[in-house]
Amino acid sequence: MSTGVEDGAQPRAVRVGIWGCGLIGTSTALALSASGCQVRLWDADPEQLAVASRVARCRAWRAPEGPDEDGWLPDVVFACVPPRATGAVLAEACRLYRDATVSDTCSVKSQPLGEAETRGADMTRVVGGHPMAGRELSGPLSARADLFQGRAWALTPAPQTAPERLEQVRSLAVAAGGFPVVVTAEEHDRAVALLSHVPQLLASALAAATGALPEAALELAGTGFADTTRLADSPPELWAEIVGVNADQVGRALGWVLAPLLALPIPSLGPLATAGQGWAGEADVPAHVRRLVSAGRAARERLPSKRGRRAAAWAWVAVVLDDRPGQLVRLLGEVAARGVNVEDIRIDHAVHQPTGVVELAVAPPAAERLVAALTEAGWHAGRRS
Amino acid sequence: MSTGVEDGAQPRAVRVGIWGCGLIGTSTALALSASGCQVRLWDADPEQLAVASRVARCRAWRAPEGPDEDGWLPDVVFACVPPRATGAVLAEACRLYRDATVSDTCSVKSQPLGEAETRGADMTRVVGGHPMAGRELSGPLSARADLFQGRAWALTPAPQTAPERLEQVRSLAVAAGGFPVVVTAEEHDRAVALLSHVPQLLASALAAATGALPEAALELAGTGFADTTRLADSPPELWAEIVGVNADQVGRALGWVLAPLLALPIPSLGPLATAGQGWAGEADVPAHVRRLVSAGRAARERLPSKRGRRAAAWAWVAVVLDDRPGQLVRLLGEVAARGVNVEDIRIDHAVHQPTGVVELAVAPPAAERLVAALTEAGWHAGRRS
Repeated sequence: MSTGVEDGAQPRAVRVGIWGCGLIGTSTALALSASGCQVRLWDADPEQLAVASRVARCRAWRAPEGPDEDGWLPDVVFACVPPRATGAVLAEACRLYRDATVSDTCSVKSQPLGEAETRGADMTRVVGGHPMAGRELSGPLSARADLFQGRAWALTPAPQTAPERLEQVRSLAVAAGGFPVVVTAEEHDRAVALLSHVPQLLASALAAATGALPEAALELAGTGFADTTRLADSPPELWAEIVGVNADQVGRALGWVLAPLLALPIPSLGPLATAGQGWAGEADVPAHVRRLVSAGRAARERLPSKRGRRAAAWAWVAVVLDDRPGQLVRLLGEVAARGVNVEDIRIDHAVHQPTGVVELAVAPPAAERLVAALTEAGWHAGRRS
Repeated sequence: MSTGVEDGAQPRAVRVGIWGCGLIGTSTALALSASGCQVRLWDADPEQLAVASRVARCRAWRAPEGPDEDGWLPDVVFACVPPRATGAVLAEACRLYRDATVSDTCSVKSQPLGEAETRGADMTRVVGGHPMAGRELSGPLSARADLFQGRAWALTPAPQTAPERLEQVRSLAVAAGGFPVVVTAEEHDRAVALLSHVPQLLASALAAATGALPEAALELAGTGFADTTRLADSPPELWAEIVGVNADQVGRALGWVLAPLLALPIPSLGPLATAGQGWAGEADVPAHVRRLVSAGRAARERLPSKRGRRAAAWAWVAVVLDDRPGQLVRLLGEVAARGVNVEDIRIDHAVHQPTGVVELAVAPPAAERLVAALTEAGWHAGRRS
């Protein structure tokens, strides 16, 4: 295998092929380019590929056709495609690039890795992966080089995976700013069912239920409600697919969470919970989840904090901070010097690394020039949209 | 009735008696004192009364014994006692203070107001109330004058309540910084069941379920999980009482939320959800909720973000900001000038008012002197603990 270091010569940049240019693929490209890798991008959608190439400043690559025009071959391929396409892309990348390590960034692991094996992928070269980042955003324009900063990056090698392949992907996860956590695919799927997929469903179901309240009553929603339903803004289609592919584990995790609630000795609860209330109609899991997440998203638009003048009027700008005293003051000083008022602020501290990303809410017309001005002043800044 | 204005004379400060000095009672005292009311405090616990009097800089008052030694009588009494005690205190305050308007701050309304009426309260003078503030804190030391700033303050007059009594409490809610929302007690209880009580139960149940995951798997918890379980840090005893008193509405709201989840067509879900998994044992609602909220709180302690060096090492300082450009920079400049590093920051923008509270996470040894220094520099600052 290629290690990215030629014998007795200068270290050669690891060649990384990104197959799929959504939020995660483009962010991976940005993060790995910044750490010195030689990255090329591919997406079946030419529009998306063009945008991602510009955002990540990487060359396009014709992944499904084998060696590139100039003979370029990837050392590592990352399949960054939707859950249902991941298994096929893993197998195809193995077939086309016979020396490459092949990984992915899919939020579910057992089904895609099983499908890759069934389709004849060389599992000694396959390392399942899942960077725990994303949120309620999508598309290459939302990509950021710091998206994985301090986040867990799950790695799920197959039993056949060669240890040096795992090491190679692990070092790239670290290079991208992540914190590698090696688990089996099944352990991963069980954990994210409870830690990610069930919270999404709870947030959506809670938000959707507010549809039954009159608008005036929604004035009584406080910060606790906003926290608990924030995830309900997420895209329905993505979640339909994720829960569909991890349905069994989600069912188990949800059962664990609901058991103590259904056991509450309140007579009005049981009949209402099991009556379905118009929710018995969907035949398959993705259709059911799509409908639930859509309902939750629509209901959240009615909340006072979402309807408020300010919330609607803000644009978010993300800036990378290191953790020295005074960094934040210096940043906000520069923002104020440009006459921009900060309407809200969020700091997303990395758990495992001494850096963080601060997000500033500003009036939308100010966002672009603020990003430009901060970038010119040496900050790592970008729109968060 | 007394309106707080003597005929043809200078306006006289409204005399407010606070009956119960926890977080909400003491914060009400602070907020109303700051707005010019003449506030006195009472609590059955002499320790708590002494602390609250010092925090709020208000005189104590011997509420359950009628007119004070110096003849002082309240124009308005606020019962700020636990849900189960609220009805009795409302009735007793009506009996002792025959001209006073009597209100409360209990998070449930129908049961306490019904009990007050049963106990013979003069309902023409009773105005139910519930400021939508609080969070996972308790006790007079957590009190803040700005706790109600921009928050909804529900008012639930009885059918018999005299309009001028409602007006009087409404004006005090505004004076305390709140945004009055007039609803019936039943509308209130139905709304908060869904917007406050069910989110608490979902957060606790979700957090509690992580007890089944191995510690390594918890590394995969991201920000979405942290958001959705934040409420799980709340005090079990308080929630046992709240849900106990509002059980029927909570059961209905929970039924609405769980219905689309239980209808998910996943075979593994139903049997697990209804098996109870050790949760069938509790006979009454408060005991069940106490156990669930305790389990959730214990489980959240295992999360990486809670176990991390920083989370454990922080103390929160709250500062009131107005919304002019540069306020935040000026504040952070003053903080930096004192050599204090800001580890995290939260801005809690008021929805209905042009001011906000910013919370700064700092090293605990720095917190006290920071509060003192900021206060001296003219900021409204306090510990948030």
